[in-house]
Amino acid sequence: MSCMEMIDADLLNRIRSQKPLIHNITNVVVTAFTANGLLALGASPVMAYAKEEVADMAKLSQALVLNIGTLQTDVVEAMIIAGKSANRHGVPVIFDPVGVGSTPYRLEMAQKILSEVNVSVIRGNAGEISGLTGQTGLTKGVDAQEEETAGLVENADACAKSFKAVVAMTGKEDLITDGSTHYLVQNGHPLLMKVTGTGCLLSSVLGAFTAVGANHLQAVVTGVAAYGVAGELAAEETGEKGPGSFQTAFLDQLHWVTDKDLQSMARVQKVNP
Amino acid sequence: MSCMEMIDADLLNRIRSQKPLIHNITNVVVTAFTANGLLALGASPVMAYAKEEVADMAKLSQALVLNIGTLQTDVVEAMIIAGKSANRHGVPVIFDPVGVGSTPYRLEMAQKILSEVNVSVIRGNAGEISGLTGQTGLTKGVDAQEEETAGLVENADACAKSFKAVVAMTGKEDLITDGSTHYLVQNGHPLLMKVTGTGCLLSSVLGAFTAVGANHLQAVVTGVAAYGVAGELAAEETGEKGPGSFQTAFLDQLHWVTDKDLQSMARVQKVNP
Amino acid sequence: MSCMEMIDADLLNRIRSQKPLIHNITNVVVTAFTANGLLALGASPVMAYAKEEVADMAKLSQALVLNIGTLQTDVVEAMIIAGKSANRHGVPVIFDPVGVGSTPYRLEMAQKILSEVNVSVIRGNAGEISGLTGQTGLTKGVDAQEEETAGLVENADACAKSFKAVVAMTGKEDLITDGSTHYLVQNGHPLLMKVTGTGCLLSSVLGAFTAVGANHLQAVVTGVAAYGVAGELAAEETGEKGPGSFQTAFLDQLHWVTDKDLQSMARVQKVNP
Repeated sequence: MSCMEMIDADLLNRIRSQKPLIHNITNVVVTAFTANGLLALGASPVMAYAKEEVADMAKLSQALVLNIGTLQTDVVEAMIIAGKSANRHGVPVIFDPVGVGSTPYRLEMAQKILSEVNVSVIRGNAGEISGLTGQTGLTKGVDAQEEETAGLVENADACAKSFKAVVAMTGKEDLITDGSTHYLVQNGHPLLMKVTGTGCLLSSVLGAFTAVGANHLQAVVTGVAAYGVAGELAAEETGEKGPGSFQTAFLDQLHWVTDKDLQSMARVQKVNP
Repeated sequence: MSCMEMIDADLLNRIRSQKPLIHNITNVVVTAFTANGLLALGASPVMAYAKEEVADMAKLSQALVLNIGTLQTDVVEAMIIAGKSANRHGVPVIFDPVGVGSTPYRLEMAQKILSEVNVSVIRGNAGEISGLTGQTGLTKGVDAQEEETAGLVENADACAKSFKAVVAMTGKEDLITDGSTHYLVQNGHPLLMKVTGTGCLLSSVLGAFTAVGANHLQAVVTGVAAYGVAGELAAEETGEKGPGSFQTAFLDQLHWVTDKDLQSMARVQKVNP
Repeated sequence: MSCMEMIDADLLNRIRSQKPLIHNITNVVVTAFTANGLLALGASPVMAYAKEEVADMAKLSQALVLNIGTLQTDVVEAMIIAGKSANRHGVPVIFDPVGVGSTPYRLEMAQKILSEVNVSVIRGNAGEISGLTGQTGLTKGVDAQEEETAGLVENADACAKSFKAVVAMTGKEDLITDGSTHYLVQNGHPLLMKVTGTGCLLSSVLGAFTAVGANHLQAVVTGVAAYGVAGELAAEETGEKGPGSFQTAFLDQLHWVTDKDLQSMARVQKVNP
């Protein structure tokens, strides 16, 4: 079932005309790529980490992105201060639980942040989203594709309900849900997996879409599709050149991707779990 | 009025033969781009942040660049230690007040640094330079172009006099002043605004020019023009490809830009306020 | 004397099939380039710095890379915790003493780490490797090429014996030794010197080779040669374009370089000191 009514391609134009300020408290690996990706798309990135200023910066912003990729205890504190300020001022918060299942510390810090800050959107891969609510239970083995997807929908659901957020569980296909309705986005390109920070940048891009789109479920579906379409355009451009060239072309295409590209190339369907 | 006597194109050659060591204490977003830009230009970048070593590193260097883009309190302390060491050893200090007006904390920290360290050059956009001395007073509105420029010259002037530094107020056009003489540089390209850290890298590049040019006003005018010329050459190279390709080409052109390019392409004029 | 028996080109294939997890505690300048280089090569990078989680992350990994490029005291503490965990779990540790001779603090911290953690591989330039054991004694002057090389072999030797590690002293040519046998690798390209972090990334790449190759001396010789071959292929690709384009092409070629390229292009010889 095609669900193009969930795509609001005009959000792309609104990002470019409104240039929303996106405050990122993110990991040390992806700072430059995140800022360049947001700039290319048409948004205005800012990074600020000091406890003394994050509340002020979050208040000024149109979205706040919290990414735990290279956590330190003082950064967690800053994230909570910034998140509470965003909550007070109606600024949507996007949360990216990078590697949350890999160490107990990350899970503990992620849960601490989520217990103190109301987030609008959570984006992560299947393991991260499932890990957040303790519901890993992923079916293992190569013959278990169907059961695996079924389990993932339930896990995304549980995460969305638990944190009252739109969840984007991204991977080969991207599942987006608010806990009751579910969409599958089938855009993107495998080369995106060969560039560090493409998941993190997507979270920040969802900040930009959420900043200009009051319907967060629609903003996230649209943002995920637009990002995947830019990836497809970049792969067309660079072909077999390799991941270095693809990274460059992807930034180019975040700049060039249009509402028309999105309307013609987005592949979105509703999922009935 | 043309002012090519303020361009000393030979400084480019001196950077390449002397390879001055530029010590950067900069924000976490632009570290790699700054180092790659300085390397491409022919200088030697070093980054060092620990309180225990910044005095030693600043002493070894030919210029010190302090950039407050992602301040933390312990980094401010390191900046002051490094700055005092640079002052003691005659190493020029370049200060970049990134986003100084956006939060009270940034302004307070910037003023603290400037009260303890003598800086040779301050580079920022109009809002940042004006904010440093509390003289925002920018004329608002689309019909106020002339008054606005007039106000900016006064603000740059006040900043230069207040901190006894050469001020580079950069934007669509770049205004450079030591508080009494004023130059306007009209090089550069709009695509520079689509790559994160091009302002920050310019501050570090001014470190390289100041390291090899005893006349700091001339070194800054020349550095700003050379940087803009490299941007124009890069835009010629990449045309409509987009900001990812431009970033790559800009690093290429920082490597290739010559004294002859600078002599033929620099657009500098004296301003009578 | 040709020593191709020291090249195990199949290690490249093993990295791509096993995708070893490489835990990097590295400097803030090279994080993205390191992660992108490891991804391009086929390995799985992870960065984690918090004291609370580095022991867990190092245990999960197939190699741990410690790089002191932008040291802070709390990072040193995290490095030691991670290193001890790696030692307990048989995970090889690669150490990169960036700029160790430039300040007393760096030397002290490097020695502290090496006194508490057993490292399998140390990679640095001639000054860094020599500095680690206090044996600088490099012959100065342009006419002293032969004595200089002789001195360097002795210094690499002393470092390898002192820390019971394979030492890769890299530069125009790369010297690799376990303290008794010595190999010279003559691959690479001068453009590698114009991109920041190519030394740091090599250290992380040696982590990937060490992760899949039980014979660490052979793994390091092979990794250094493969890295140099990728550099040569990238330089062929970009020619005179400049360091920005070279950086992109180098990431592409880390993805494309094959066991056959390595077998036909590696230049390795045994050295009799």
